[in-house]
Amino acid sequence: MSSEARIGLLGRGTVGGAFADLVEARAGAVADVSGRRPQISGVLRRSEGDFGEILGGSDIVVELIGGTDPARDYVLRALEAGKHVVTANKQLIAQHGDELFAAARKAGVQLRFEAAVAGVVPVIRVISESLAATEVTKVFGIVNGTTNFILTEMARTGASFADALAHAQELGYAEADPTDDVGGADAAAKMAILARLAFDTPVRLDDVSYEGITEISPEDMAYAKELGLSLKLLGVAELSEEGVSVRVFPCFLYPGHPLAPVEGPFNAVMVQAPAITEITMSGPGAGGLATATAVLGDVVSILAGEAPVHETRRELPIVSDVASSFYVHLEVADRPGVLAAVADVLGQAGISVKSMVQRGAGEQARLVMVLHETSERAFYGALAELAKLDFMRADPRAIRVIEEQFG
Amino acid sequence: MSSEARIGLLGRGTVGGAFADLVEARAGAVADVSGRRPQISGVLRRSEGDFGEILGGSDIVVELIGGTDPARDYVLRALEAGKHVVTANKQLIAQHGDELFAAARKAGVQLRFEAAVAGVVPVIRVISESLAATEVTKVFGIVNGTTNFILTEMARTGASFADALAHAQELGYAEADPTDDVGGADAAAKMAILARLAFDTPVRLDDVSYEGITEISPEDMAYAKELGLSLKLLGVAELSEEGVSVRVFPCFLYPGHPLAPVEGPFNAVMVQAPAITEITMSGPGAGGLATATAVLGDVVSILAGEAPVHETRRELPIVSDVASSFYVHLEVADRPGVLAAVADVLGQAGISVKSMVQRGAGEQARLVMVLHETSERAFYGALAELAKLDFMRADPRAIRVIEEQFG
Repeated sequence: MSSEARIGLLGRGTVGGAFADLVEARAGAVADVSGRRPQISGVLRRSEGDFGEILGGSDIVVELIGGTDPARDYVLRALEAGKHVVTANKQLIAQHGDELFAAARKAGVQLRFEAAVAGVVPVIRVISESLAATEVTKVFGIVNGTTNFILTEMARTGASFADALAHAQELGYAEADPTDDVGGADAAAKMAILARLAFDTPVRLDDVSYEGITEISPEDMAYAKELGLSLKLLGVAELSEEGVSVRVFPCFLYPGHPLAPVEGPFNAVMVQAPAITEITMSGPGAGGLATATAVLGDVVSILAGEAPVHETRRELPIVSDVASSFYVHLEVADRPGVLAAVADVLGQAGISVKSMVQRGAGEQARLVMVLHETSERAFYGALAELAKLDFMRADPRAIRVIEEQFG
Repeated sequence: MSSEARIGLLGRGTVGGAFADLVEARAGAVADVSGRRPQISGVLRRSEGDFGEILGGSDIVVELIGGTDPARDYVLRALEAGKHVVTANKQLIAQHGDELFAAARKAGVQLRFEAAVAGVVPVIRVISESLAATEVTKVFGIVNGTTNFILTEMARTGASFADALAHAQELGYAEADPTDDVGGADAAAKMAILARLAFDTPVRLDDVSYEGITEISPEDMAYAKELGLSLKLLGVAELSEEGVSVRVFPCFLYPGHPLAPVEGPFNAVMVQAPAITEITMSGPGAGGLATATAVLGDVVSILAGEAPVHETRRELPIVSDVASSFYVHLEVADRPGVLAAVADVLGQAGISVKSMVQRGAGEQARLVMVLHETSERAFYGALAELAKLDFMRADPRAIRVIEEQFG
C-alpha cells in the first residue's frame, strides 16, 4: 500500500481550486507513478486557515497565492521547516530566487516552479534537467498569453489595442488591471527566471529591460500584414562574450519563423545551444487546469525522487547594448529632400536600409523602412536625430524585426 | 570535492564518439549540477574491450551500439549487475521494453532512453515526468528526420522520391540502406515507445500498423501544393474508449497545423490531454552531437537523483479500425458516367466528398478528391471497389489528410 503525501495548499483561487480538484481526481495515478498518494491536508485562504498549523500537517507546501507578500514569508518558512515547495509564482522566483534557492539547499529540500513560466509548457524542466550540462546560448519566446491574444486579435480584425484589450478582458484572457501584462513586466519576470536557469547566473528583475505593446497601432499591423510579418511580444535572453542580455519587446517575425504561427493565448519558448541547434516548445500559457497540471507535475517529481536545487555558478555582466534590425515608421511632410535627409542621418550612424516603401501624399505621407542589423545604441541615436528633422509630423516609431528562418 | 561517476560506453560510432567528447568537455558542468564528475571508464567497440571488465569498472552503462543483439544481452546484464543504463536504442526499447523495465525495477536502478525518440526533443521526459499523472489522450508527430528531409525536398524541388532519397544520402540524412526509415519501421518503433509511456499499457512493435513514403509521387506533391497542403510522415498514438491505436502513415496537413512548418531533418511531437489542450515540442531529430546531448541529459538525471522506472499499469486493447479523412487520386478514362460511378461507390459506403477537382483529358484525365472523415475499413473497402471499375487506368492512390487547426 502506498503511503500518503500531505499537501498544504496556500491559496484557493482559480489555479488553487483546479489543483485541489486535480489532486483528488489523479491521486491514484500519482500513487502509481511515485509510490505515494497525495492528499490536500490543509488549505490557507484569506479568511480561513492558520499557516503554522497547515505547515505542521504537510509534507509538501504548494503556494498559489501569488504576489510576494506574504508568499515570500510563507515559502521561506516552509523551506526552513524542511518541506518541499511547489509554486507557480513568477514574481516570487524572479525577485527572491537567490534567497529561496539558498534556503532550499540549506534544508535539503526541493523548490519547483514549472508553472511560473509558460504554464504547462515544460521549459523549466527542459532547461534545468534535460539541458543541465549543455551550454545554452539563447532562450527566447512568447511568454505572455494575454499580449499574444491581443496581438493576434489586432492582426486578425484590424482592431485598436484598446478594443482588442477589451475583448481579451471579456473572454477572461486579460485581467481587470492589465498593466503588468500589456506593459511587459510579467514577461520580464519570466525571462529573468529563464535567463538565470539557462545561464547559471543571477539575473534580477532590474536587469531586464522591457517594453510592452500599448503603443502598437493598427497601422503598424497593416503594414506588417502587407510585408507578410507577424507581430509578437518576445522575451529574449542571450549569452554573449560580454555577458548576458535579457529583454522584452514587441517584434516583427518573418514567415517561416517557428514562433510566427503561435497565436491566441498560447506561449512558446525556443532554446538554442551549439550542441542541439534549437528546441521549440509551445502550448497553453495559462488557464487554471493547465497551470494546475504543471503544479501537479512538480509534485509528482518531488514524490518520485531527489533532485538538486538550482544554484548560480557564475556572475556574468548584464549587457545593455545589443544588435537588432528595426522597422521604422516615419510620418513626414511631402516635399523634396525628405528621403535624402533621412538617408543621410542613417548613413552617418552606419545604418543601412534593407527595404523601404513610401506611401501616401500630403498629410498622409509616410516612409516605412526595414533596416539591417545595427547596434541598438547607434540606432536609437539616429532615431533621436530623425525626430529633430523639421519635416517630421510625428515622433518616429520603431519596432524590432527578426529575420532568421527555421531549420 | 565531487566524487567520480564511471561510465562504461558500449559503441563508439558517430553518437558514441560525440558522447565521449561531450563527457570530457562538460564533466565540470555535470559535476556542478549533480555533485558527481563523469568519466568514461571503459569503451567497448567491435574490435576492442571486454564487456565483463567494462561492466565491473562502471557505475553507469551507456549503450550506443544499436540493434538488439548483443545490445539486449549487455543491457540486461548491466541492469542485473545493479548499474544504471542509458540507451539511445529505439529497437531495443520497442522490442524488449517489458523485460528491460522489469529488470531495472528489480535491481532498483534507472533505465533512461530520451535519445531513442526524437533525439534531443525532450518528449520522453515530458511524457514520463511532467505529465506522469495526466491522462494523455493522443501523442503524434514527425519522428523520423530522414523521411521529413526527403518530403521537404520533394515539395521544394518537385523531385521524385528516388532523387530526393539520393540527395538525402549524399548529405548524410539517409543511410546507405534506408529501408527502415523510408518504409516507416523506424517511426513505428518510436511510436510504440511513446504509446507505451503515454498510455501506461504494453505496446509492442507488432501492434503498430505502418506505411512509408516510397509510393509518394511528385504528382501528389504538386496537387497538394495547389491545395496549400504539406505532406508529412506522421506517427499517431491515440487512446479511445475501445483501446489504443498506434499508426504511422504519410499524411497531408492543412496550413496552420503546428506540424506543417516542420521541415528538413527536424522532428516534432504533440501531446494532447484534456487538462493541457496540447503541447508541441520540436527540434533536431538526429545528428551525433544532438543525440549525445540527450544521452548526457539522461546521465545527469541519474547522477542527480532517484527516479522511478516505467511500469505498465493496464493492458488496453489495440484498436485497428479508426476514422480518417483521405485524399484520393484516380487516373480514369475520359468518358461520360465516370464521375457518377465513382460517386455511387463512395455513396454506397457512406462516404461523402469534401472537395474534388477533375484535371486533364484523354490519357491524362484524373479525379482528385478530399473525402470527409470515415472509418478506414469502410474507406479501404470502397477503394477496392473503385479499383475494379473498368475505366480505371491505374490503381487508385490514397493519402490521409488532417484538417484540425492549431490553438
